[in-house]
Amino acid sequence: MPAVSTAPTPRRRRLAVADRRHELIDAALVLFSSQPADDVTLDDIARQAGVSRALAYRYFGNRADIYAEAMRRAADEFLTRLDPPRNGTPLARIVQAIHGYFDFAEEHAAGFQALLRGDPASQAGAVGEIVAEVRAALFDRLVDGMGRRAATPQLRLALHAWIAGAEAAGLDWLSHRDLDRQVVEDFLLDQLYNALAAVGRTDDDVATFLRGIS
Amino acid sequence: MPAVSTAPTPRRRRLAVADRRHELIDAALVLFSSQPADDVTLDDIARQAGVSRALAYRYFGNRADIYAEAMRRAADEFLTRLDPPRNGTPLARIVQAIHGYFDFAEEHAAGFQALLRGDPASQAGAVGEIVAEVRAALFDRLVDGMGRRAATPQLRLALHAWIAGAEAAGLDWLSHRDLDRQVVEDFLLDQLYNALAAVGRTDDDVATFLRGIS
Repeated sequence: MPAVSTAPTPRRRRLAVADRRHELIDAALVLFSSQPADDVTLDDIARQAGVSRALAYRYFGNRADIYAEAMRRAADEFLTRLDPPRNGTPLARIVQAIHGYFDFAEEHAAGFQALLRGDPASQAGAVGEIVAEVRAALFDRLVDGMGRRAATPQLRLALHAWIAGAEAAGLDWLSHRDLDRQVVEDFLLDQLYNALAAVGRTDDDVATFLRGIS
Repeated sequence: MPAVSTAPTPRRRRLAVADRRHELIDAALVLFSSQPADDVTLDDIARQAGVSRALAYRYFGNRADIYAEAMRRAADEFLTRLDPPRNGTPLARIVQAIHGYFDFAEEHAAGFQALLRGDPASQAGAVGEIVAEVRAALFDRLVDGMGRRAATPQLRLALHAWIAGAEAAGLDWLSHRDLDRQVVEDFLLDQLYNALAAVGRTDDDVATFLRGIS
């Protein structure tokens, strides 16, 4: 083999940098998912990724940078999970989205709790924005899943209340672990139905939507 | 009148200190209720209270101290409002408590939003604890209002979800102001009823409570 083939081309070098960052973020997510963010150091992340401390510092200047990037990745993954196949019925898609929500909460328990409880590390600018963005995306998907382009004030309020209730239910379930997950998911589905039913009393479109899925 | 009567006794001096602090907290609450906490300086508070800057600094070392004490006072006031007369029916008491909740949110709009949205100033140790304490007190009152000494896991989860939904509804209402307050209060009452009805499917005590109030 000619020696030249082992010398990275600019293209390969760029990919390698991206891969290395990806690896470090993977390692960070493992740690952030299972322990409080403030307890995780860049050294811990380097160790988890099996690279030297110096290398980790070359890719991420500090813990806050890697934390923000890890939360960005987690948020993207979360939203992907909440995007069930377009071909299901609206009800099946909601059931699946709630299930995906709890899968995620369970797999990333520590991170989920830290983010939503509003731990100081999670409130810093960039990460606070990611949380707000995820909430807004959830809201948009619910509105979209109802086949609407925008929410009326009452629907908006009802969905915001329900999303907050779902977060609180997720946190309660994770911190006590004394309820069957299915019970919690069923409760949230029931509450969403009831919230929409309340809106549907004065909103014909919502009432029609509910009749369609029942 | 003998001159001696105007010289403050130690008892009077202590009261005067308490009064002065109270006055400064009153002034602080006016400001914190109508603008973001981070925009309010100790100077602003002194001006609002009509005292010198030096005096304000003598009573409160810094803005964080006065902020924490103002939030403590606001929390106490809030909980007092949510404690309707013991002699009403459980339903009337819940209706009144939800009404008191929104009265408070409306009167202290900026402070309510800052605290519950988790603005950085609101997350600092002491204030974060006050928010957690208020949530816990709300929870205890709901359980108590149902004539129970403790909540089962399912009731606990349902009430936590409902409290979070009520906060989100309050924030949504305050930031948009495009819904009649009564509509929001009715929605929350309805959601509480439905949450309890869901629990009541497997919890006879809750089912009995609901039959009693319907």
